[in-house]
Amino acid sequence: MHEQLNFIIEILGTISFAMSGAFAAMQKRFDPFGVLIISFVTSVGGGTVRDILIGVPVFWMHDIFICAVIFGSCMIAMLIKSLENKFRVTLFLFDSIGLGLFTIIGVQKGLSAHLHPIICLTLGTITGCFGGIIRDILLNRIPLIFRKEIYATACIIGGAVFLFAVKYLTFSYTFVQIFTIITIVAVRTLAVKFQWEIPKFYWSDKNNSEM
Amino acid sequence: MHEQLNFIIEILGTISFAMSGAFAAMQKRFDPFGVLIISFVTSVGGGTVRDILIGVPVFWMHDIFICAVIFGSCMIAMLIKSLENKFRVTLFLFDSIGLGLFTIIGVQKGLSAHLHPIICLTLGTITGCFGGIIRDILLNRIPLIFRKEIYATACIIGGAVFLFAVKYLTFSYTFVQIFTIITIVAVRTLAVKFQWEIPKFYWSDKNNSEM
Amino acid sequence: MHEQLNFIIEILGTISFAMSGAFAAMQKRFDPFGVLIISFVTSVGGGTVRDILIGVPVFWMHDIFICAVIFGSCMIAMLIKSLENKFRVTLFLFDSIGLGLFTIIGVQKGLSAHLHPIICLTLGTITGCFGGIIRDILLNRIPLIFRKEIYATACIIGGAVFLFAVKYLTFSYTFVQIFTIITIVAVRTLAVKFQWEIPKFYWSDKNNSEM
Repeated sequence: MHEQLNFIIEILGTISFAMSGAFAAMQKRFDPFGVLIISFVTSVGGGTVRDILIGVPVFWMHDIFICAVIFGSCMIAMLIKSLENKFRVTLFLFDSIGLGLFTIIGVQKGLSAHLHPIICLTLGTITGCFGGIIRDILLNRIPLIFRKEIYATACIIGGAVFLFAVKYLTFSYTFVQIFTIITIVAVRTLAVKFQWEIPKFYWSDKNNSEM
Repeated sequence: MHEQLNFIIEILGTISFAMSGAFAAMQKRFDPFGVLIISFVTSVGGGTVRDILIGVPVFWMHDIFICAVIFGSCMIAMLIKSLENKFRVTLFLFDSIGLGLFTIIGVQKGLSAHLHPIICLTLGTITGCFGGIIRDILLNRIPLIFRKEIYATACIIGGAVFLFAVKYLTFSYTFVQIFTIITIVAVRTLAVKFQWEIPKFYWSDKNNSEM
Repeated sequence: MHEQLNFIIEILGTISFAMSGAFAAMQKRFDPFGVLIISFVTSVGGGTVRDILIGVPVFWMHDIFICAVIFGSCMIAMLIKSLENKFRVTLFLFDSIGLGLFTIIGVQKGLSAHLHPIICLTLGTITGCFGGIIRDILLNRIPLIFRKEIYATACIIGGAVFLFAVKYLTFSYTFVQIFTIITIVAVRTLAVKFQWEIPKFYWSDKNNSEM
């Protein structure tokens, strides 16, 4: 049961991130193979970094199914793109769901490797955020997550909620997973809607200079 | 015989990419040590990522000879640079040959690790393209391969040709390798000469906005 | 004794680089979690790449103390930032000390893994420089080390001095370590003060074109 749910979560997260990467690459007018590569890297980037850090085999090296899912998602993204043009909302929603799903997978993998909860939280954040970070590096822009939309923050909050619930509460595992994802999507959506920003308490003066 | 040919291919690819990296760094007016670092990273970057993904020891960690080759190539590139100034053609040619050579090595390493052909093709593409991608990230520009010159495409076509020939045809191994390299160099040269572009079929409208 | 000194060196280097990353991120007006991530990546980036290349477990995966040190350094950097505004000198000093400390750790780890001295020197350079390189990539700017301040050069010189002294001289280990750090900080400080530049001998003509 857990296995099946984890599998579905991984596939959904992969689809979400593959599409998010494909849309971003198409907006930069990359050629189809460029779109495919960005889509692939966005989708597997976070998990790849996580697996290398933990020291376990990289998850997609023996998993041709994941590659097929990414390829399919990328194709669908290209076709949807030619039909309609409502990027922002689509991109945002896919990104948020993928973020939630991947954060959970990262924390779980860390727990399986018997690592400290703080390291698990870090691995969750890496799994959730690094795909997008690598995507933005390849598109030559400052990773969005550092400046806007309470992105990493949503990720860390969601991961902490998940860790706490898994460790101390008696809810079913499935419920905790769904609740975590809803939390992350909600935090991000509310943050964008009401333009929340984390107070930058270190800006006590009017210094705007970029050294 | 195979061993020797593979060795020669690896050295030639290393020289090509080291020079390509050195030329790119000199054009940005990096200092000599910066040129050396970019040269090194361009040359070993793709193979390093490949080895980490497969989970085998990184190829240049116990191979001081490769380091010497890169150092020598970088020096020669600096000297050639001070004598003449014909960048574009030189850079392009070195880059294309290196691309072909490294793609083959990547596919071969994947086959040796008994991975699925699609994963082998991916590893070939990574070996061929990631050195240049890392170089362009370090030079703070959008990696060329995503926008121009049918770069990744040449790599994927070459890798597919190689895989198909190795699996299903009865030509000698050496012939297949040389044929693959010629294919990749030819695809790239023709693409640049006739300004081929892969149709971006998802651009049905006149939307140029970069979100 | 060696163990203790190495431990202190690692902590000091971690603090230096965490603060250097935090200051750089605050100057770009990242939100606090963004500052924390940049701080973390700058601090552990070089050592992480080194450990992955050598093929040993990544040092901070089982070391919650390092994470706490980075978190603390990052907090202190944020608080200092709101009180005073003297970036350049602080940033420069922290960066130089961290560079020296991390270069030594990298060379030592290479020697422990019985690698060739040239590879050890490369690993020292990677440990010292890659945290800053990743930081600059994330901030979407050309890594400083390639263009200015004799940065990588100081690192390579310091590493070479350290290697030479460890192999051939009879000074105490502690003395060699301190001498190496002073060398690196001195080279960088003098280079900035007197605006030293390594001669770019390949610029014999007036070509400034960026291809």
